Amino acid sequence: MLNNKNDNEKLSDLGEERILQRLKQYMEVGQIDDDTAVIQTKAKDLIINTDILIEDIHFNETTSTPKNIGWKAVAVNVADLAASGVEEIIGITVGLAAPPSTSWHWVDNIYQGIQAALNEYGGKLLGGDCSSSKQRMLSITAIGIKGKVNLHRSNAKPGDLIVVSGPHGLSRLGLSLLLSNNIKDTSQLSDSVKLKAIKAHQEPQAPVIALQKLIQCKPKTVPWRAAATDSSDGLLNAVKCICKSSNCTALLDQTNLPISNEWPNNKNWDELCLHGGEDFELVVSLPAIWAKAWLGSLPESKVIGKMSAGYPEAIWSNGKKIKTSSKIEFEHF
Amino acid sequence: MLNNKNDNEKLSDLGEERILQRLKQYMEVGQIDDDTAVIQTKAKDLIINTDILIEDIHFNETTSTPKNIGWKAVAVNVADLAASGVEEIIGITVGLAAPPSTSWHWVDNIYQGIQAALNEYGGKLLGGDCSSSKQRMLSITAIGIKGKVNLHRSNAKPGDLIVVSGPHGLSRLGLSLLLSNNIKDTSQLSDSVKLKAIKAHQEPQAPVIALQKLIQCKPKTVPWRAAATDSSDGLLNAVKCICKSSNCTALLDQTNLPISNEWPNNKNWDELCLHGGEDFELVVSLPAIWAKAWLGSLPESKVIGKMSAGYPEAIWSNGKKIKTSSKIEFEHF
Repeated sequence: MLNNKNDNEKLSDLGEERILQRLKQYMEVGQIDDDTAVIQTKAKDLIINTDILIEDIHFNETTSTPKNIGWKAVAVNVADLAASGVEEIIGITVGLAAPPSTSWHWVDNIYQGIQAALNEYGGKLLGGDCSSSKQRMLSITAIGIKGKVNLHRSNAKPGDLIVVSGPHGLSRLGLSLLLSNNIKDTSQLSDSVKLKAIKAHQEPQAPVIALQKLIQCKPKTVPWRAAATDSSDGLLNAVKCICKSSNCTALLDQTNLPISNEWPNNKNWDELCLHGGEDFELVVSLPAIWAKAWLGSLPESKVIGKMSAGYPEAIWSNGKKIKTSSKIEFEHF
Repeated sequence: MLNNKNDNEKLSDLGEERILQRLKQYMEVGQIDDDTAVIQTKAKDLIINTDILIEDIHFNETTSTPKNIGWKAVAVNVADLAASGVEEIIGITVGLAAPPSTSWHWVDNIYQGIQAALNEYGGKLLGGDCSSSKQRMLSITAIGIKGKVNLHRSNAKPGDLIVVSGPHGLSRLGLSLLLSNNIKDTSQLSDSVKLKAIKAHQEPQAPVIALQKLIQCKPKTVPWRAAATDSSDGLLNAVKCICKSSNCTALLDQTNLPISNEWPNNKNWDELCLHGGEDFELVVSLPAIWAKAWLGSLPESKVIGKMSAGYPEAIWSNGKKIKTSSKIEFEHF
């Protein structure tokens, strides 16, 4: 907070040039002193991803601090890179838009959250742009070096096991607790589960360690072939994306959903696990021998089903359709 | 317009998944089928740039068609890559946000403009994201391969000539004509100048050819050293950026401003040239021998002054301050 002498300073008091000058404190290299930032590629292929986060759609100040928002903006993108087999995060660019009445304090805290996440996952703030707007908005483009594993959604094959890197539903539960519009009866939950859920929503972790273990544990007898995505738009959605791209049917085990400890045992809560969203875990379809090695090295991971030949959809392993009774799926439009 | 059966379809009618599926028609490779897009680096360094464009700040439907807006969003970013010595445009990612009531027709035309510009400058649509928002917004991240010329704003040296790749002020004049709020008396202008100005505003060109000629014409006796930026925020602003980064004084020739043919000869119009903005020309500080070679190969280019040791600012070559009487400088906040 080098320049943060006055928490009430407005962006309109500063003007674009001074805003950009202040943002320099967060950049080691970058686009502010030049028109672009340079990326040294080390002769390897890169992977790139852009995500936009809009106030009142993806974040709001009731449920998250500005530091949370900055952190999450990076973690969301890093999760996408992880789901594509990133070996090293190079960095991000940030497009930030906010009304002129926005305080510098808010912007500064957003960048502190961004910096904290970059410290955690690696990578630098490469540059970006800022502008006034009616609504606060962050657009993050993340770039990383691709590793040797080829993770594409279209890589699943019949016979694969479907494994997730951790529990699902916590983030949506945390949001519900923060909004006090409890969509479920949470009276039986312990405080520790509630706090875990709130943290999962406000400061999610990208599945970078899960990816590293996936790479480290691969048996030599199988090729570098696995299908993956992250569960940012919900677990079932992630499985369906792999089914569509790979033209396979996912058979999910209704009795073995990746729920958290102390998760209530009923169908309503199962739906939170399947559709909650913003879980940012890896959802991977891979050969059984590799899946078992990964399960052994990552205690939080779980087999949720298997891939079979058939119509590209996800069904229960008993052949029944997966029904959704409540409207908790996340739609951006 | 493969899927454009109904111009009145709203984004809210389609939902995110169908929007993304439709956007696939514009992508050869990309982030829609996977979480990221892959970039093959050919073992060279890359340059990256992010720009955001917000409705009613950077564009509006009174003065530009959606195709214009898509084109311009790409050209703006390519201009930044050109000012950093790009050798080949790899591609862009697009973050698009718009209210749910926005027509698919609008989005489709934005992407047609983007595609047209990519066809012109090279590069592919690598992927992106979309979301609903209160205000229409585009965030473009462009990536290119860096060539052998090292163009940094900090590379200017006393003794350099300052050369621009083309005339300035046309885009701002075009905007004024489109808004019919003429900031100058345009009664004496020919229709051809007016049309040129409107085109400069609606469908600007990135200075890619100017960069190629700059590289091709370099005399062997000088190193690959030049300072450059593009004049997106105005000619004087661009010169000042180089002065600040290079710690030099720019001495500008008041009698040799880079005005267009038929440009009225008075101080008010000079200010349009100096501060108009969105010109997207290269502003380069370079050794005289290289500058002269560039001038010979690029008829539209012009020497506007020279660099000297001194306080980092731009002044007239007679030592007088450059005054601004009207408020036409562009501020994003």
